[in-house]
Amino acid sequence: MTDLFWLHGESWAQVAQVAEAVTASPGDVLYALDLFGTIVFAISGALAAGRRHMDVFGVVVIAAVTAVGGGTTRDLLLDRHPVFWIDDGLYLVVIVGAALVTFFYTRYVRPPDSALLYADAFGLAVFAVVGARVALDHGGGPAIVVLMAGITATVGGMIRDVLCDETPLILRREIYATAALGGGALYLGLQSVGLGTWGAASATIVAVTLLRLAALKWTLHLPSFRIGDPSN
Amino acid sequence: MTDLFWLHGESWAQVAQVAEAVTASPGDVLYALDLFGTIVFAISGALAAGRRHMDVFGVVVIAAVTAVGGGTTRDLLLDRHPVFWIDDGLYLVVIVGAALVTFFYTRYVRPPDSALLYADAFGLAVFAVVGARVALDHGGGPAIVVLMAGITATVGGMIRDVLCDETPLILRREIYATAALGGGALYLGLQSVGLGTWGAASATIVAVTLLRLAALKWTLHLPSFRIGDPSN
Amino acid sequence: MTDLFWLHGESWAQVAQVAEAVTASPGDVLYALDLFGTIVFAISGALAAGRRHMDVFGVVVIAAVTAVGGGTTRDLLLDRHPVFWIDDGLYLVVIVGAALVTFFYTRYVRPPDSALLYADAFGLAVFAVVGARVALDHGGGPAIVVLMAGITATVGGMIRDVLCDETPLILRREIYATAALGGGALYLGLQSVGLGTWGAASATIVAVTLLRLAALKWTLHLPSFRIGDPSN
Repeated sequence: MTDLFWLHGESWAQVAQVAEAVTASPGDVLYALDLFGTIVFAISGALAAGRRHMDVFGVVVIAAVTAVGGGTTRDLLLDRHPVFWIDDGLYLVVIVGAALVTFFYTRYVRPPDSALLYADAFGLAVFAVVGARVALDHGGGPAIVVLMAGITATVGGMIRDVLCDETPLILRREIYATAALGGGALYLGLQSVGLGTWGAASATIVAVTLLRLAALKWTLHLPSFRIGDPSN
Repeated sequence: MTDLFWLHGESWAQVAQVAEAVTASPGDVLYALDLFGTIVFAISGALAAGRRHMDVFGVVVIAAVTAVGGGTTRDLLLDRHPVFWIDDGLYLVVIVGAALVTFFYTRYVRPPDSALLYADAFGLAVFAVVGARVALDHGGGPAIVVLMAGITATVGGMIRDVLCDETPLILRREIYATAALGGGALYLGLQSVGLGTWGAASATIVAVTLLRLAALKWTLHLPSFRIGDPSN
Repeated sequence: MTDLFWLHGESWAQVAQVAEAVTASPGDVLYALDLFGTIVFAISGALAAGRRHMDVFGVVVIAAVTAVGGGTTRDLLLDRHPVFWIDDGLYLVVIVGAALVTFFYTRYVRPPDSALLYADAFGLAVFAVVGARVALDHGGGPAIVVLMAGITATVGGMIRDVLCDETPLILRREIYATAALGGGALYLGLQSVGLGTWGAASATIVAVTLLRLAALKWTLHLPSFRIGDPSN
C-alpha cells in the first residue's frame, strides 16, 4: 500500500514512471490508458458535482465514485481482491488531483463542452477495453468479457447520475451502453482472430470513440421501445 | 463457463434439459423455478425500460439488472463465488432472450397489465424461496435466511426503479417487501416443522403469490407511518 | 450465528453485556459506540421512511439499509467476511428494535428535530471512527483509512436518500462527507502521534460532532463549485 499524501516524492516518481511506460510493453500501455480513463471520468464526475454546487469535498467524492465505480463493481463481481484502487494508490492520487484541478480551474475558466464530450467518449472506450482485458485475464467466457467491458465503462457514470440527481445516462438514447458492450465484443473478436493486445486495444478504442462521437453528432440511436404502438 | 452466444446448440440443449427437470428432484425444480423467476423479472425490467423509451441495449441492460440484482447482492453479502450468473451462463441466455422477445413483441402487441402483475407476484414468491434456500444451504441462521429471501426478491426491482427514475417499489404500500420477508419466514417455518423442500417451497410460493395478488386487488397494506399524527 | 427472534433471552443478555462493556476495554467501548451509532442511523432511516408513509416493514427495511449500508460497503471493499451484521446478530436486533420503537412512538409523539440532528451528528462521528479503526486493523494505508471512515459514515445515508427519493445528503452543503473524511484523518493523526485508541476515538468523536453541529447551526460550508463564474 502506498503511503499516499505523506510520501508525495514516491507518488510523483510513479507518475513519471507511468509517463515513460507509454512507450513500453502492452501491459504498461493499458495501465497508462487506464489511468488516463480514470482522470477523464474523475473530471466528468467533478463537473457533474459542480453543476449541483457541491463543496470541494463533495466534488472529490463524486469524482472518485465516477472514476472507480465501474472497476470496483467488476472486481467485486469477479472476486478480485484487493480491489484495484486499494491495491494501487496511484488511482486515488490522480483522482484527487484531477478533481481539485477541475474544481479550481473552473472557477476561472469554463471548459468547452466539446472537450469534455471528446474526453468522455475516449474514457468510455478505454474503460471498455480495460474491463474486457481484466475479465479475459480472469478466465471469463465471451459473455462475461462483454459484460465486464460494459460494467467497467458505465457503472461509475450511473452512480454519479443517481447521486447528482440527474437523468441516468443509460436513459439517454445516443448509443452509450451499446458502445461499451460493443467495444468488449470487438476487443474479444480482434484478439480471437489473432491480433495482439496492442492492436486489439488500439483498434477498439478508436472504434468505440468514433462510434460514440458519431452518435452524439448525428444523435444516432438504436431502435427504441414503443409499447403498444403498432404503427411503428 | 458456457461459451454463450457461440454455442447456441449446447445452450438449447440446456434449455431442454431444464424443461425436463420440472418433473425431477426438488433441487432441479427449484432451479427451473429460479429460471422462471429470472424470466419474469427480466420481462418486468424490459417493460420498465420500455416506458422510458430506452434503446434495445438499454432494455437488455435493465432487464439483466432487474433479474440478477437481488441474487447478486445476496451472493456478494454471503461471499458466494462465483456469483450465480457468472457460474451458470444459462441465466444470461434466458435474460437476453426474454428482453429481446419483450422488446419486439411489444412493438406489435401491448401485453395485458394483469398478466404482468400475476407474473411479477409469482416471481417475487419464487425469488423469496430461492433466497431462503441459498441462505439455508450457506448455513445462515433464521434472521439471515429471512433477510436473504427479502434481498433476493426485492433488490433487483429497487435498482430497476432507481435507474428508470420511477418511484422506488419499496415506497409503494401494497405489501411488497413484507411479502418477500414473510415468504422467507414461512419457508423456514415449514421446513423446521418437517416439510421437505418440495412441500415447503410450493406452499410458500402459493402463499406469497396469493398474498401479493390480494394486496394488489384490495390495496391491502400494513399500518403505515404517520409522524406526529396522534388522531390515528 | 445468534438465533435471533427465537432466543430473546440470549439477545437481551447480550444487550446487558454491552451496557456493561461501556466501562471496559477500548475494543468494547468501540463496540458499544458502534451499536449506538447503529441505533441512531436506524432511527434516522425509520424517520425518513416515515416521511414517505411507508408501512412498518418498509420502515424496518430502510432503517436497516441506513444503519448497515456504510459498514457493509466497507466490508465488501476490504473483503472482510462474514460481513459484520451477518457475523454478529446483535446489530439486526438493535436495528429492528430501534425501527419498531420509532414507528410506534412517533404515532403519538413527534420527536423534536433538534434531538435527531444531535444524534445524527454523533452517529456520523462514531461511524467515521469505527470505519477508520476497521481499516487500520485490516492493514490499510492512510488514504484507505480516511476513505473507509468516509464510506462507513456516509454510504448508508446515501442509499436511504436514493430509496426515499430525497435529495441525496451529499448534495447538501453543510460539511457532511467532509466531516466524516476529516474524522478519519484526525483519528489517524492522533493515533500516529501516540494517543491510544481511547483518546484518539473520544477526541475524534467530539471534534466531528461539534464540527457537524457548528456547520448546521451557522450553515458553514467549504468553498463550493461555480462553473464559469469568474466574479467569484
